[in-house]
Amino acid sequence: MSFSAVELIIKKRERGELSTAEIDWLVANYTSGRVADEQMSAMAMAILLNGMNRREIKDLTLAMIASGERLSFDGLAAPTADKHSTGGVGDKITLPLAPLVASYGVAVPQLSGRGLGHTGGTLDKLESIPGWQASLSNTELYSQLAEIGAVICAAGSGLAPADRKLYSLRDVTGTVEAIPLIASSIMSKKIAEGTSALVLDVKVGSGAFMKTLDRAQELAQTLVQLGQDAGVKTSALLTDMSTPLGLKIGNALEVKESIEVLTGGGPSDVVELTVELAREMLHHVGMSDVDPRENLSNGKAYEVWRKMIAAQGGDPDAELPKAKHWHQLTAEESGYISRLDALELGVASWRLGAGRERKEDAVQFGAGIELHAQLGQWVEAGAPLMTLFTDTEEKFERAQALAQGAVSISASHAPERKLILGKIS
Amino acid sequence: MSFSAVELIIKKRERGELSTAEIDWLVANYTSGRVADEQMSAMAMAILLNGMNRREIKDLTLAMIASGERLSFDGLAAPTADKHSTGGVGDKITLPLAPLVASYGVAVPQLSGRGLGHTGGTLDKLESIPGWQASLSNTELYSQLAEIGAVICAAGSGLAPADRKLYSLRDVTGTVEAIPLIASSIMSKKIAEGTSALVLDVKVGSGAFMKTLDRAQELAQTLVQLGQDAGVKTSALLTDMSTPLGLKIGNALEVKESIEVLTGGGPSDVVELTVELAREMLHHVGMSDVDPRENLSNGKAYEVWRKMIAAQGGDPDAELPKAKHWHQLTAEESGYISRLDALELGVASWRLGAGRERKEDAVQFGAGIELHAQLGQWVEAGAPLMTLFTDTEEKFERAQALAQGAVSISASHAPERKLILGKIS
Repeated sequence: MSFSAVELIIKKRERGELSTAEIDWLVANYTSGRVADEQMSAMAMAILLNGMNRREIKDLTLAMIASGERLSFDGLAAPTADKHSTGGVGDKITLPLAPLVASYGVAVPQLSGRGLGHTGGTLDKLESIPGWQASLSNTELYSQLAEIGAVICAAGSGLAPADRKLYSLRDVTGTVEAIPLIASSIMSKKIAEGTSALVLDVKVGSGAFMKTLDRAQELAQTLVQLGQDAGVKTSALLTDMSTPLGLKIGNALEVKESIEVLTGGGPSDVVELTVELAREMLHHVGMSDVDPRENLSNGKAYEVWRKMIAAQGGDPDAELPKAKHWHQLTAEESGYISRLDALELGVASWRLGAGRERKEDAVQFGAGIELHAQLGQWVEAGAPLMTLFTDTEEKFERAQALAQGAVSISASHAPERKLILGKIS
Repeated sequence: MSFSAVELIIKKRERGELSTAEIDWLVANYTSGRVADEQMSAMAMAILLNGMNRREIKDLTLAMIASGERLSFDGLAAPTADKHSTGGVGDKITLPLAPLVASYGVAVPQLSGRGLGHTGGTLDKLESIPGWQASLSNTELYSQLAEIGAVICAAGSGLAPADRKLYSLRDVTGTVEAIPLIASSIMSKKIAEGTSALVLDVKVGSGAFMKTLDRAQELAQTLVQLGQDAGVKTSALLTDMSTPLGLKIGNALEVKESIEVLTGGGPSDVVELTVELAREMLHHVGMSDVDPRENLSNGKAYEVWRKMIAAQGGDPDAELPKAKHWHQLTAEESGYISRLDALELGVASWRLGAGRERKEDAVQFGAGIELHAQLGQWVEAGAPLMTLFTDTEEKFERAQALAQGAVSISASHAPERKLILGKIS
C-alpha cells in the first residue's frame, strides 16, 4: 500500500490514529530515504505533542525491528538476560552488572551506545581501558557469549537501522523526549537483539529524561508492555536520578569505581542498584534464590570482568588514563548536603570533556568529577566537596560555576535518599 | 547574539514565548542554512500546535522582511493599493480587479505566485495567454506601474527569501495551516513589496485553508493587525469558499471568465466580489465615492487590461488554448443544487491537469471544469451540470468520480448563498 507522507503527518497533527499499514509504510520509506528528514521531524514533533496509543507504539516498534536484522541466541546453552538504563549521571551499573550476572551462568549480551549530551555512554567508559575494542562481528559476539557469558559491545548497524536514523534526527530537532519514540527506540533494539529476558532501569529526576515519577511510570509501563507483547520477559525498576550514582562521574573514573564494586567495595548506592538489577535478571531466568552479593564479595564477578575485558583486546591490569589538570572545590559552610544535583553535575562533567557535543567529537577519558561526599552527608566548612578533572585547563571556569551551583548545604538533616522508587513487572 | 536551534524548538514545544532576538536569529540562520530544514520543520509543527502570540508573529514577519530587499513606490505620482486572496477554487478575481482599480488612477502592484495543490495560481492563469511573461525586473515593474497602473507579475526572489524557503518546507511537512506561519508569509511579502494599502480576501469553507468562520476571523484579524503595525492601510473581507467562484475553473477558462467580467458580463458572484474588493481598495486611497461598476460597464477597465497584457508580451486578442478532450456530466434527477463543493471540484480540476502536483510540473492551460449551473439553481434531470476538460483522456475517470461526488440535488430550495461573510478593518 502507498501513502502520502504529508497526509500521515496531518493525520497525527490532527490527533488521528495511524494504522498499522501507515506506520509500516512510514518507517520503511523513511529508512529508504523516500520520506525526507524534514517530514519525519515534523511527524516526530506531532507525535511528541499529540501522543500515540499502545497499538501505534507497538506497530512503530515492530516496524523499526523489521527495518533490519534480528539476532538469535536460541542456540546457546545458557539463558540470556539483558538490562537497559534510560541513562543517568554516574550510571556505570552496566559495567559491574554484566559480569556479575554472567558469573551465575547467564549469558548477558549487552549491546550499548555512545554518550551524547550530559549522560555518559557505556562504550566511552570502556574505551578508556587501553586496547579495549567496542566493535564485534555477530560471530565474535556469539562466541564470547558462549565462552565468557558477558559481552558489552557496540550495537551493530544492522539492528533497527530505522531507529538509528530517527534517533540522530530527534537529537537535533528537539524531539527526544516523546515517550512513544523513546519506548520504540529502546525496545526495537532490545527485541531485535534477541534477549529472552530484559530488566529496565528507568531513571527519574533532574539528571534523567523523565523528570517526574508519573512520566517515568508511563514510560516504564509502555516498555514492559512492549517487551511482554514481543515474548521477552520484561520488568522495570524506577530509580532515583536526582543526584549522581556513586562518587565518580566520567569515563575512566567510572571504570575505576566499577572495579571497586567488582572487588567487594564501592559506594553503597552503586552496589545496591547493581545487586537489585542482578536479582531481577536472575529471577527472570529462574534463579530467584541466588544472592548476587556473594559473587561480588568472593571475586567470581571480577574474574568474569577480567576475561570479558581481555576478550575484547583490553588489558584489565593497565593503568587507566588520568586527566592532566585537577581542581578541588571545598564546602563554603558546615552542614548537611541537602542538594547535589545530577543534571548540573552531569553538564559540568560533560563540559570538562567527559562527554561530546557532536557525534564526531572525541571524549577525554580522564575528565570528569570525583565527589568526596554524597547527598545527606555532613561536611565541615573548608572540607573538600569534589575534584574536577580535565585535559583542557580553560574548561574549569564554566564547569566550576556549574558544579558549585549543583550543591546546597543546610543546617538541618536532609530526608534520606530513596534509590529504588518502584517496580513494574 | 547566538542561540541553539534545539533549545529554541524545545522552548516552543513547551509552549514558551520566543523573544525578538531568538526569532531574528532563527530566521537569519535558517535563511543562511545554519539552521537545517529538519530543525525548521520541527519548529513549524511546534508553532502550528502551540501557537504564537501577536508579538511573536510580528517579529517573525519583520525577520522575514529583513531577510531580503524592500521595494518602494514612494516616487510614483499615483497612490498604491494591492489585494491578496488566501486562495480558492475559481478565484480569478485578481485578473479583473487589478485593471479595474488601475482604471481609477490607482497603481496596483500585484506580485503573485504559482498554484500548488487544488487552488489555482494567478500566474498560471495569465500564462495561458499566448506570449504573456510573468517575470519583470524591478525597473520594468516600476515603469509599467507608472505608465499603465496595473501589473500582475511574479514576485522576485529578492522579496522575503526566508518565506520562500519556509513555504516550500511547510508544503511537504504538513505545516501549511498554522495561522502564525500563514500570516507572516503573506504579510512579509506584501509589506516588503511596498504597497501603501492592502485589502485581504480571506476565504472560508471547504475550498479554503480556513474551514470555519472562527479560524478565518482569527487569521484576518492577525493579518490586518500586522499590516497596520507596519504602516500599511489594511482591511479584510471574509468571503465564502464552500462553492467555487463563478462558472469556470482552470487556467484559460478563468481568463475567459475574467474578460467576460471586464466587458460588462460574467457571473454575478465574480462581479460582486470584484466590485466589493475594488471599493475597499479605492476607499483606502481616499476614493470612497466611486462606484467601481461603472468602469466595468463602460470598457475603461478592459482597456487597462489590454494594455497590461500587451506590456508583458501577451496578445489580448489571441485565441486561448482549448483542451483536447471534453466530457459532459448531466443531472441524475431534477431538483435544486443544494451542494456544489469547492474542494472536490478544485481537486477534480487539479487532477484534470489544471494544477501541478510538484513545483516542477507543467500545467495544462485548457484543462478544468465549466459549470452549467451554480449552487441553489434548479436543474432538470438529464440537463448538463458541468463539462470537464483535459488534454489527457485517461484523467477523466478519477476526476469524474470526484466531480460527481461534489454535487447534491435536493427537492427543497437551498438557503441563499452569502458571498461576503464579514469585514475586518
